[in-house]
Amino acid sequence: MSIIVQKYGGTSMADSKCIKNVAQKVVKAKRLGHQVVVVVSAPAGVTDDLIRRAKEVTDKPSGRELDMILATGEQISISLLAMAIKSLGEDAISFTSSQVGIFTDANHNKAKIEEINTSKIMKSLDANQVVIIAGFQGVTKELEITTLGRGGSDTSAVAIGVALGASEVEIYTDVDGIYTADPRIVASAKKIHRITFDEMLEMAGSGAKVLHLRSVELAAKNNMPIHLRSSFSDAIGTFVVDEEDENMEQVLVRGVAHTTNNAKITIANIENSSKNIAYIFKSISDHNINVDVITQNYIKKDRMTISFTVSEDEYEAALALSKKLGKDVKAETVYGNESVAKVCIIGVGMKSTPGVASRVFDCLAQSDVEIDMVSTSDINISCVINQKDYQKAVIAIHNAFEL
Amino acid sequence: MSIIVQKYGGTSMADSKCIKNVAQKVVKAKRLGHQVVVVVSAPAGVTDDLIRRAKEVTDKPSGRELDMILATGEQISISLLAMAIKSLGEDAISFTSSQVGIFTDANHNKAKIEEINTSKIMKSLDANQVVIIAGFQGVTKELEITTLGRGGSDTSAVAIGVALGASEVEIYTDVDGIYTADPRIVASAKKIHRITFDEMLEMAGSGAKVLHLRSVELAAKNNMPIHLRSSFSDAIGTFVVDEEDENMEQVLVRGVAHTTNNAKITIANIENSSKNIAYIFKSISDHNINVDVITQNYIKKDRMTISFTVSEDEYEAALALSKKLGKDVKAETVYGNESVAKVCIIGVGMKSTPGVASRVFDCLAQSDVEIDMVSTSDINISCVINQKDYQKAVIAIHNAFEL
Repeated sequence: MSIIVQKYGGTSMADSKCIKNVAQKVVKAKRLGHQVVVVVSAPAGVTDDLIRRAKEVTDKPSGRELDMILATGEQISISLLAMAIKSLGEDAISFTSSQVGIFTDANHNKAKIEEINTSKIMKSLDANQVVIIAGFQGVTKELEITTLGRGGSDTSAVAIGVALGASEVEIYTDVDGIYTADPRIVASAKKIHRITFDEMLEMAGSGAKVLHLRSVELAAKNNMPIHLRSSFSDAIGTFVVDEEDENMEQVLVRGVAHTTNNAKITIANIENSSKNIAYIFKSISDHNINVDVITQNYIKKDRMTISFTVSEDEYEAALALSKKLGKDVKAETVYGNESVAKVCIIGVGMKSTPGVASRVFDCLAQSDVEIDMVSTSDINISCVINQKDYQKAVIAIHNAFEL
Repeated sequence: MSIIVQKYGGTSMADSKCIKNVAQKVVKAKRLGHQVVVVVSAPAGVTDDLIRRAKEVTDKPSGRELDMILATGEQISISLLAMAIKSLGEDAISFTSSQVGIFTDANHNKAKIEEINTSKIMKSLDANQVVIIAGFQGVTKELEITTLGRGGSDTSAVAIGVALGASEVEIYTDVDGIYTADPRIVASAKKIHRITFDEMLEMAGSGAKVLHLRSVELAAKNNMPIHLRSSFSDAIGTFVVDEEDENMEQVLVRGVAHTTNNAKITIANIENSSKNIAYIFKSISDHNINVDVITQNYIKKDRMTISFTVSEDEYEAALALSKKLGKDVKAETVYGNESVAKVCIIGVGMKSTPGVASRVFDCLAQSDVEIDMVSTSDINISCVINQKDYQKAVIAIHNAFEL
């Protein structure tokens, strides 16, 4: 009998109607002969309400006490789902992460899972029970309650799947899979049936915010297949699998992702020295600003211009800091552009096929989209463009590669 | 340095304003040089909301899963209070009962505390932290989450006080003490400064629903003084102490309590046999109906009439059952009266002073209050009367004994 792990997010647990719907899906899987472990998030709205309560008491809640209050959200979900499943005639039992023994480090609000004790889960599965586990939370060996950070329930589900040797982790969400492009922009976008872990990582890092990045990394590391699907339909979704998966269709480009919440900063005409580069990016990092794409252009022998993108909400802080850094490194000028977008072309097929980048550039040129910055990995070509052009760019590339 | 345990109920934790008020009281006690342990209930409304969520999912939530969801209410309170205290500049740490090790039996929804591990609490107190513990909940040795039943936070506080050898347990509530009679009825009612455990038990069992009965029993058994006081003022409240307490004022009658939610049932003219009595009350008990006052009147040599009171909300069920039982024991008739009240005169002084009962009867007679049933212990005289007369009766007795 195979073990499957199902994970349901907050919107799937929002109210009693949603919870009963989830219970039916769980019972269905159980009656198909699986041993079912369910990982759930807090009901939609509950986590925000708990944070509101904390903020009303203090501006700066301690990490430990914030974890203490946040962990209650998932505890509410597990008990309600256990009740709902029992009322459908199947036995079920809920566990907090403390009860299971989902051990993490002591980094409150962003803990990492270190070890999972499977004995309680296995005992309950062997007693023919559906096992329901609180996602997002963990416990230290000293019984301190921790949380894994927003979206951490995906990671909980994959980690539990790995620990149990599950055949598959099903992640239920409010979309029914990953598409070749955002269907709101490209009407002909198609659902991707299989995508590799690496492609999914690039997609997740490039605007397709469906799966928590850390959960994909963990799944990739342990070769644990993920089935991403909708909790509101029975449709097959997208399987995230290893590149070697025999059912994997070989394509050049898997999909196009994009983000529009980008801003670009340029520090122009500074002395070309690795000392300068190190100084700039160390300072930015010290201010907890995340830099995405970086380009470095040589103007002449010993002069260069540095450009980089940050997320829109860090733009003001990044620009102010860059102006200060610009003075330090004697830049000619420092300027920013709040209105850029990033379009990413992703596919493992690119690794072995040269010329993809030039086809992308060609296609964008034909569509009158000016490319501002480019960054590439062996399975991802990212182009930073004017924000006003992003829809045109996505459609052009989607058509050019016949996705 | 003495340890004090403070307990705050749901109305004291209702919102951020209340919680900040509680934090200030705690900090004040700490700065007076005490080691402070705080036990809290769920914020007012949260427990009801959780029960509503459960009832929306199923009519019959399992006891285990109900405890799982209910325990989150107190977990919310402890973290918020810890945050509030920290923001006032004192260090604080919150613990669930699982983290402390408040071990109970496995009777879900009405568990009994069996053992408390004090090591974590003592370690934190010694580190100069205020320790905040979730009331109402416990954990079995198998890490199953249990709850103690409504009002169980009082019991948690006393049990923790006993385990720590605290000098006192302060129970903060929305009234400022126990009065010689209900101040809404008797304008001249005075706050009782000291009351014995036994008197408090009788008061709590007779309408003064300020302290959970079980908590008083536990305090009495371990001679743990309770200070019952208001969380909305700094006034001294009522101390519940041992009879031997040297500061105890010696009075004949401590106070008058009353309940109006009573109903009376009479099974008239049956054969006088202990078999009949046993049969009737065993059957009633088997139906989970609580009987309060019982009287048995002999009509003639071998015939008797049995009367007893139940709470109003069990009246319908009790009457229907009694009619059936009446047939079984060949009663002449069975009838009920939904409109009775109970007035109780309580005081340890009665033990050594004969004639109190006759003074009560005399005083009621002078006020034209007809006594329907009487039941006495050595510190409590309870009179069942017509419901319409209860205010008159309470005032008359309060005056007669110059309370």
